[in-house]
Amino acid sequence: MQHEKTTVVDCTIRDGGLMNDSHFDLETVRAVFRACCESGIDVCELGYRNSKEMFDPAKFGAWRFCAEEDLKKATDGIDRGDMKVAMMMDAHKSTPDDLLPANESQADMIRCATYVQDINKAIRLAKAADELGYETAMNIMAITHAHMPELEDCLDQIEEETNVQAVYIVDSFGNMYMDQLHFMVAKYQMHLKTKAVGVHFHNNQQLAFANTMEGIVNGATWADGTINGLGRAAGNCPLELLIGFLKNPDIDILPILDCLGKHIIPLKENIEWGYHVPYMITGILNQHPQAAMQWMAGPDKHDYVKFYAEVDE
Amino acid sequence: MQHEKTTVVDCTIRDGGLMNDSHFDLETVRAVFRACCESGIDVCELGYRNSKEMFDPAKFGAWRFCAEEDLKKATDGIDRGDMKVAMMMDAHKSTPDDLLPANESQADMIRCATYVQDINKAIRLAKAADELGYETAMNIMAITHAHMPELEDCLDQIEEETNVQAVYIVDSFGNMYMDQLHFMVAKYQMHLKTKAVGVHFHNNQQLAFANTMEGIVNGATWADGTINGLGRAAGNCPLELLIGFLKNPDIDILPILDCLGKHIIPLKENIEWGYHVPYMITGILNQHPQAAMQWMAGPDKHDYVKFYAEVDE
Repeated sequence: MQHEKTTVVDCTIRDGGLMNDSHFDLETVRAVFRACCESGIDVCELGYRNSKEMFDPAKFGAWRFCAEEDLKKATDGIDRGDMKVAMMMDAHKSTPDDLLPANESQADMIRCATYVQDINKAIRLAKAADELGYETAMNIMAITHAHMPELEDCLDQIEEETNVQAVYIVDSFGNMYMDQLHFMVAKYQMHLKTKAVGVHFHNNQQLAFANTMEGIVNGATWADGTINGLGRAAGNCPLELLIGFLKNPDIDILPILDCLGKHIIPLKENIEWGYHVPYMITGILNQHPQAAMQWMAGPDKHDYVKFYAEVDE
Repeated sequence: MQHEKTTVVDCTIRDGGLMNDSHFDLETVRAVFRACCESGIDVCELGYRNSKEMFDPAKFGAWRFCAEEDLKKATDGIDRGDMKVAMMMDAHKSTPDDLLPANESQADMIRCATYVQDINKAIRLAKAADELGYETAMNIMAITHAHMPELEDCLDQIEEETNVQAVYIVDSFGNMYMDQLHFMVAKYQMHLKTKAVGVHFHNNQQLAFANTMEGIVNGATWADGTINGLGRAAGNCPLELLIGFLKNPDIDILPILDCLGKHIIPLKENIEWGYHVPYMITGILNQHPQAAMQWMAGPDKHDYVKFYAEVDE
């Protein structure tokens, strides 16, 4: 009935930034940050600290890089209490050189996102961040494309070589049904003796929240959500639903709902996240949503039969 | 991996009619009917056969009454194969007098919808329909408001006194988490030795599809869906997701996707079904969505904090 021990991570600005090249205005970022602080959740991830070598700053907004001065503008004057500020770093799109020592940074935590094949880069990054004084976590993306025994080796490496607090099951494509989730949680728990298991799900099949709950019930203790599910393509587990489920008396849903109505709903004018059939189709087919995102921007967006024929291999 | 034995029921026009007073134009109804026939699902419910004493025909559309001549217009010239045509009758809003003998009707099946307290009316209705030659099913609405032992008595009565093929768990308010679902499926199975268990869920917390799957995995063998989830308030389990999960080689998803893009998406101009925060709030609070539907039509539709304060008792 109650899951107080769940570490709740908001990644609205970070994952949502995949829909608008991280071009959020400062007011929106501050509103999300303030709502997270006021609600009492554990971690707010304000964007990526990715490399300007890999992303053109003329094209991408501030929250793809999270420069210290921008983090300061986003958080200045807002009482963050015990809440941690996180940044995500893609293992293949950033380097340890992008980090200051933690005591000179606005951020407390680095979450390393990686595909199984980039695990060595991710471990190097996580160790560097750890040595610089950050808390660390590891998000293994596209888990429904991972094969055994590579994934098992990857989990063993993380367990042995890093100090990350949590290792995430990330269903980037929104493909996962519950039987696979059960398998993955058990697999992670078997290999990660000293780390928490985290869950980050996408909503292509309207399962992001259900799978997050089921992950928690089965032992995951870190869970990601975004306000109104804002995130790439079909989006994420809606933070408001997660909070409603957790029934943690220290977390208040109202600041999140207030921010949702005032700052997230207006974004719908320009960004079309959430459940749409092209995203559902790539989810069912276990594919990256990129083709669906392109289709949604094209002239035949509601010709689902044509899209299905294009992507069904 | 495969659940071929699931009886799949489409109730797009019936449940969707709760959003537009059953005012669908004939072209839409025929398109849904044709898509169901072509996809190979088992049952298509075309509306309510409710009483004109209870619903003013000047206000409500044809699909609240399903007059035989309208059913004929909706189905004429379309090869229905083995698919059954169903109508729903509300136990407290219709009488057996509203029914012709089955062999004079376009409909094959009567689904009796009832609250626990109206079970005697529902049983009378189901028995009358059975005697007239219809297949029958029973939908127990608002199951999250049912108390024990009343629900147990109700299930025993249905088991002993009727020939209904299936008895549904209906989460009218979209309140149910998985632990309660497990409890209900087990409770139904314990009391219904000769009937199938059915599942009909609403999407207030984005759990309609997840709960439908979990119901099936736990032994429910009848499942309701609607195209794109069209239905009251947050809507229903999307039929296209259910089909994607079932992997029944006799069911084709493409006619459903085609109908969805061409005939259901355009309805969004006038009907706002799906996940919206006011519906989520009534779902979490285990309340009828009526207050949320009114709020969504008002001037403060995105002031969720104000709505929460109004409905939180």
